Amino acid sequence: MALRFRPVETAFYDDFSAQAQHLVRGASLLAEMFSGHADREKIADDMRRAEHDADETTHAIVRRVNSTFVTPLDREDIYALASGLDDVMDMMDEVVDMIVLYEVETIPDGISEQVDLIIRCADLTAAAMPNLRSMQSLSEYWIEINRLENAGDRNHRRILASLFSGEYEALEVLKLKDVVEALEGAIDAFEKVANTVEQIAVKES
Amino acid sequence: MALRFRPVETAFYDDFSAQAQHLVRGASLLAEMFSGHADREKIADDMRRAEHDADETTHAIVRRVNSTFVTPLDREDIYALASGLDDVMDMMDEVVDMIVLYEVETIPDGISEQVDLIIRCADLTAAAMPNLRSMQSLSEYWIEINRLENAGDRNHRRILASLFSGEYEALEVLKLKDVVEALEGAIDAFEKVANTVEQIAVKES
Amino acid sequence: MALRFRPVETAFYDDFSAQAQHLVRGASLLAEMFSGHADREKIADDMRRAEHDADETTHAIVRRVNSTFVTPLDREDIYALASGLDDVMDMMDEVVDMIVLYEVETIPDGISEQVDLIIRCADLTAAAMPNLRSMQSLSEYWIEINRLENAGDRNHRRILASLFSGEYEALEVLKLKDVVEALEGAIDAFEKVANTVEQIAVKES
Repeated sequence: MALRFRPVETAFYDDFSAQAQHLVRGASLLAEMFSGHADREKIADDMRRAEHDADETTHAIVRRVNSTFVTPLDREDIYALASGLDDVMDMMDEVVDMIVLYEVETIPDGISEQVDLIIRCADLTAAAMPNLRSMQSLSEYWIEINRLENAGDRNHRRILASLFSGEYEALEVLKLKDVVEALEGAIDAFEKVANTVEQIAVKES
Repeated sequence: MALRFRPVETAFYDDFSAQAQHLVRGASLLAEMFSGHADREKIADDMRRAEHDADETTHAIVRRVNSTFVTPLDREDIYALASGLDDVMDMMDEVVDMIVLYEVETIPDGISEQVDLIIRCADLTAAAMPNLRSMQSLSEYWIEINRLENAGDRNHRRILASLFSGEYEALEVLKLKDVVEALEGAIDAFEKVANTVEQIAVKES
Repeated sequence: MALRFRPVETAFYDDFSAQAQHLVRGASLLAEMFSGHADREKIADDMRRAEHDADETTHAIVRRVNSTFVTPLDREDIYALASGLDDVMDMMDEVVDMIVLYEVETIPDGISEQVDLIIRCADLTAAAMPNLRSMQSLSEYWIEINRLENAGDRNHRRILASLFSGEYEALEVLKLKDVVEALEGAIDAFEKVANTVEQIAVKES
């Protein structure tokens, strides 16, 4: 029986790690999008592919939960973690999409800080996923994500205030507000993943 | 005992079919709203009634889950399906509401395609619900809904790009963006229902 | 064993009451924010503290659910109620935040009615929480909250219509729409709490 259990467990943890790796790729494409002279159409295509790959991994996890009798974590926790990681990708994809669709030209101050935070969140999440197996060193991860989310929130508020300062035209504000909120949404989505990991760790401890 | 079980099962499947029928009615009212020379106040009243009827059915399902000892599907799946169907209605109702409240006059190109997609999604969902009992022919349904959702998504992106092309005034964009996003939200809500049905079918198979 | 059970039960009900008391404080700060000559920065600070205290109580409940073997209510109901109450606070906090960030100057007609409704919802919720223990007099509470939410919804629609009447500039509409929707979101969040209480009461009856 141990022989049957191990591969299944391994598969779950590998899938979570793969999902987090998709997020690292997505975060890097996001950063590229905001750099000067980006080939926006190409980046958007790459992002769509990354998003598609992440979707595949999510479906693989859901199928595996449904076809596995004994899962290494509670079923609902596996669902929550898989869909939480998927939500991060969707938010990053949304940002990239908006830049293309709205033909955003002006990038307000503070955006690059948000993108940097997203990259750090992705890296931390990718480093944490393999530790789910041993449940070691996870608290450092979720504490740091929470700290980054707080920093992101303060920065988000500063950007919003500047958007409404009268400096931008209404149509520009309308575009930029969507972009800025989607960036904040991505950071929030990383925090949700960290909260799910915390709940799992507390339960298993 | 078989005598007691059957009516309860039947009631659940009948309720899901009734919910989907409310969506067919709602989709038809939505289409009417976007036709020229619509009596908007009257349609909004009819929609409110359809939404109210859908709410009643949802509550009936929830009451039945809570008062039934053995349910034909898992309790959480019944909840998810009932609330998923209810969400579709809420989104359609929201669109109709906005048209009245915002006094929307300009209807951008691409909207009628979205409305057509919503009508097809409602028809497909109504045709699929009775099949929950036998769990037959459901995969065709969810595959087709996913295909329609993808078409809706591409169309949604084209509409958004046109909204921000500079053709419309900021206040008009603000109104139309809400309408367009609520239409997209309705299509997404149909997809969520289809995903729930897929999960149920996979579990039961 | 009875000796161990009682304090745990009491703690849960006390925590829900404490959460609702945070909402009463939040609603009062919200009302202050919309009064003339408010010290906005100070109120926003107080609100942040109230929101933080509410968060602490939510975490205490989650920790207690995870560390308690026999809970007085179903685990998922406790989570739903705790996170529902927390959501109300987040919505109220968001309103206060926006007023500061957007430097909102014009307050459209109808806002004060929404704030009054929020105060009444908070008071009713605070009065209902201690009754969870006996499950008495709860139906009056959820019926009244549903009535207030309907009134709020009608009022919300009137405010939106006035925002889009052409009286305000696009940038002003963009700001005020967010504020108005967050107020409506707070009232909706109270209704969700009431619905959760209804579900719990139906199950326990």
